[in-house]
Amino acid sequence: MPCPIIETIEVLAKKWTLMLLHQLSLNKRLRFNELQASMDSISPRTLSERLDELEKEGLVIRKAYAEIPPRVEYSLSEKGRDLIQGCFSPIEKWAKKWRK
Amino acid sequence: MPCPIIETIEVLAKKWTLMLLHQLSLNKRLRFNELQASMDSISPRTLSERLDELEKEGLVIRKAYAEIPPRVEYSLSEKGRDLIQGCFSPIEKWAKKWRK
Repeated sequence: MPCPIIETIEVLAKKWTLMLLHQLSLNKRLRFNELQASMDSISPRTLSERLDELEKEGLVIRKAYAEIPPRVEYSLSEKGRDLIQGCFSPIEKWAKKWRK
Repeated sequence: MPCPIIETIEVLAKKWTLMLLHQLSLNKRLRFNELQASMDSISPRTLSERLDELEKEGLVIRKAYAEIPPRVEYSLSEKGRDLIQGCFSPIEKWAKKWRK
């Protein structure tokens, strides 16, 4: 049986994923270019991969507007907000408590 | 400034690390061979690497007894127990709540 903790940690451990979730938690919704500008040195290809993964995991919602030029916005899902609120703050608390 | 959440997740994400911490949380202390036996298919070399990393992170305590033959036992530190109690249960709760 797969372990839910291992599965969750594996998703979060990929480079940029936590920063991406953090940016989306600070801003209600962001366009691709805004996300890229908020994360120094991430390549468009990597950002695109991470967004796809997070959408597949149900953590991020991708919304495309039928406009010209097309507009696409990304935001946290309820599941994603719940992860940040419920899990990140205990980890941060622990890390700060035990920082050398 | 390094992010404490990213640093923590990076340590935990390495293959076998969570299972190793879990085994040590189930048993007060374990010898190397007992740990290896509790985790199918981990190689002695990888187990040794993970134990070194976790000792360096202050999550695991290595205790060598001056006996013949030498005896070495591994256990969770207070920091390691605190991580499991404080952080793993919120992640597990979240993962179970949102499981597809």
